[in-house]
Amino acid sequence: MGMTMAEKIIAAHAGVDRVEPGELVEVRVDFVMANDITAALAIREFEKLEVEGVFDRERVAFVADHFVPPPNIKAAEQCQAVRTWARRKGILYFEGGRDGGIEHIVLPEQGLVLPGEIIIGADSHTCTYGALGAFATGVGSTDAAVAMATGRLWLKVPPTMRLFYHGTLRPWVTAKDLILHTIGRIGVDGALYMAMYFTGPVISQLSMDARFTITNMAIEAGAKTGLMDVDEKTLEFVRPRARRPFTVYRDDPDARYEVELDFNVSDWEPAVAAPHLPSNVRPVGELSHIRIDQVFIGSCTNGRIEDLRLAARILQGQRVHPEVRCIIIPGSGAVYRQALAEGLIDIFVEAGAVVGLPSCGPCMGGYSGVLGPGERCVSTTNRNFVGRMGHPTSEVYLANPAVAAASAILGRIASPEEVPTMAVAA
Amino acid sequence: MGMTMAEKIIAAHAGVDRVEPGELVEVRVDFVMANDITAALAIREFEKLEVEGVFDRERVAFVADHFVPPPNIKAAEQCQAVRTWARRKGILYFEGGRDGGIEHIVLPEQGLVLPGEIIIGADSHTCTYGALGAFATGVGSTDAAVAMATGRLWLKVPPTMRLFYHGTLRPWVTAKDLILHTIGRIGVDGALYMAMYFTGPVISQLSMDARFTITNMAIEAGAKTGLMDVDEKTLEFVRPRARRPFTVYRDDPDARYEVELDFNVSDWEPAVAAPHLPSNVRPVGELSHIRIDQVFIGSCTNGRIEDLRLAARILQGQRVHPEVRCIIIPGSGAVYRQALAEGLIDIFVEAGAVVGLPSCGPCMGGYSGVLGPGERCVSTTNRNFVGRMGHPTSEVYLANPAVAAASAILGRIASPEEVPTMAVAA
Repeated sequence: MGMTMAEKIIAAHAGVDRVEPGELVEVRVDFVMANDITAALAIREFEKLEVEGVFDRERVAFVADHFVPPPNIKAAEQCQAVRTWARRKGILYFEGGRDGGIEHIVLPEQGLVLPGEIIIGADSHTCTYGALGAFATGVGSTDAAVAMATGRLWLKVPPTMRLFYHGTLRPWVTAKDLILHTIGRIGVDGALYMAMYFTGPVISQLSMDARFTITNMAIEAGAKTGLMDVDEKTLEFVRPRARRPFTVYRDDPDARYEVELDFNVSDWEPAVAAPHLPSNVRPVGELSHIRIDQVFIGSCTNGRIEDLRLAARILQGQRVHPEVRCIIIPGSGAVYRQALAEGLIDIFVEAGAVVGLPSCGPCMGGYSGVLGPGERCVSTTNRNFVGRMGHPTSEVYLANPAVAAASAILGRIASPEEVPTMAVAA
Repeated sequence: MGMTMAEKIIAAHAGVDRVEPGELVEVRVDFVMANDITAALAIREFEKLEVEGVFDRERVAFVADHFVPPPNIKAAEQCQAVRTWARRKGILYFEGGRDGGIEHIVLPEQGLVLPGEIIIGADSHTCTYGALGAFATGVGSTDAAVAMATGRLWLKVPPTMRLFYHGTLRPWVTAKDLILHTIGRIGVDGALYMAMYFTGPVISQLSMDARFTITNMAIEAGAKTGLMDVDEKTLEFVRPRARRPFTVYRDDPDARYEVELDFNVSDWEPAVAAPHLPSNVRPVGELSHIRIDQVFIGSCTNGRIEDLRLAARILQGQRVHPEVRCIIIPGSGAVYRQALAEGLIDIFVEAGAVVGLPSCGPCMGGYSGVLGPGERCVSTTNRNFVGRMGHPTSEVYLANPAVAAASAILGRIASPEEVPTMAVAA
């Protein structure tokens, strides 16, 4: 019997010919990442190991993105500790400026995460890199610390869930809607400890930016990772950036899948995940009575240049509703500069939005855009748990950037088609 | 004996022919302002007064600028309370987006503070508006609440200190340097409860943006307010914006001054106020050994378009030092859009700076750019007290935007002339 991409990557990194789901193996890891919150914890664990340096300085990165520039003294101390340690150990470090931004946007941009690799990160959305055909997964800070020291990790081989997408996408239905509908169908534990393998003609047609949006949310279905085939688009993205050679793996024709799902996407509408679970998915039209206070466009899910282009297409020549704060945060310095060059920032500020500096923004409820009691936000992020973005009585509605932009204009949850100029465009 | 501008404004608002320094008078106030922190307190006091509405809805404004978008739940609750109250009472309210920004930049832009007026604000830097020939002063939230209800305030008439500036400004010596040198000479209580009247040919030559920088810091010498003559530049600024008619007052030739100071500025160098007082002023060259971690360009002192142009002139084609975080925050939505239109934002991000959304930023140590232990920041703000921008052991060096930009490039306190391309330009 054949193997899946996930199994092949793990076997190669365990130095064996094949692995079986459920098996515990020790693997070589290609890259270890932590952010300003988790790196602080990982450093503490690392210091207990009493080793001098990391296993490979070019394969360990800290990305300060959650609380930068720091909003309080505690965050400043944490960031300073992480920055100082990174400099002393000579590892890769990204914070603000030209190269900084959100970890899951920066590392692919920098060519530091590659097809066929095992990448671990002390952040649950590390699965994002699976769009590159990598096995990427979030770990705790202790596991990250050990991997930083040894370049190795114990891993239970996950079974693979194959999700096959076919049909024709309707207007304004994006990668975000594909993953929201999927989680809506299978639930937040529907892929528990599995490798979600996203495939089919609909996935092939998606750009790399769009693919990252999908694998980013694999964890929201409980998955260990999410993966996609490496195709010409992947290679076009990776080749000019790659800092190391890499290997491409593919599922064998007789690979074994724990679950196989087939989705005809032709009837899918733009989706909104209502509070308080990413699986609480409704067609946007069912929620058009919900008035909102804030819109956030950005994050590791939807903070890439195509996301901003989509938002700009809706916001161009429009005005943000007077009772809505619309916060737009490019996901990295590179995305920011590209948005600037394309005039997207002009469109946003002309419309009355504010544009923040590259960071995670309000996504995790600890920065620039935290919600007060009872406030409602349409957000392009990946989580809408109770209190995720602020006060326990606040509400987050997850949506794609076009729905978010349309909602910002109309002051309520809205489909892009409800924006007068867009009815024609669609 | 004649009267000063300050005395004439107060007399007119007290409904009397003349007032004497030291006299207590009740005056009509033309405008009352509070920010997101102080408005929350003012509302509480206002509610105790058991009146229905404010004295004039067009003459009371709340400007949310210190903690927006909110970085934590407490700030979100505070901002929500202020926003909700403002809407319910129908008063002016500014927060983010097209019209929002820092109170002391927004209100002049909006034509809401005018020559000859008495303006009070629940913020110590309310004296900024004196550049328009207004009597503007900071008050506590209780005084602000009473004025919101009654449109009146008790005031002790301040004596006037006349500061006469003549000579020729050397390259890179700006309005910021004039006020820093002044405070360096007279000390942080050198103008205690006086009206500082800034005049002379050097002041006349300054743009409005530059003049606001000077009056902004009158409070740092302990002054009740700072004022300047209304001239053609003032009227050019005010006429297209003014939302009300206004009156221009001038000092009588035989006005009485408590103190008269004469400054020949020709020998002045760019100034830096070292920790921990704005009066601890040194020529920039004396501090060039000080290594820095952060640069902040923005605030009610230096967050206007000319400040950003000056910073851009230095940063163009340069790179921010790899160990410095350079944070640039346009002071209002209007400044942001202008900077965008002029390509300044491009210059900043190309140089590796990050550009924040219009707000007070890290100035008061509670937002985007708080300093950690022992960190040093060159900042275009107005205060460098112990712990002002973060940890009690951090240090803030006050400077003009050109010095701040040069320091960002060189990684230490630096004169613009030390930036290779600038030596020629100067």
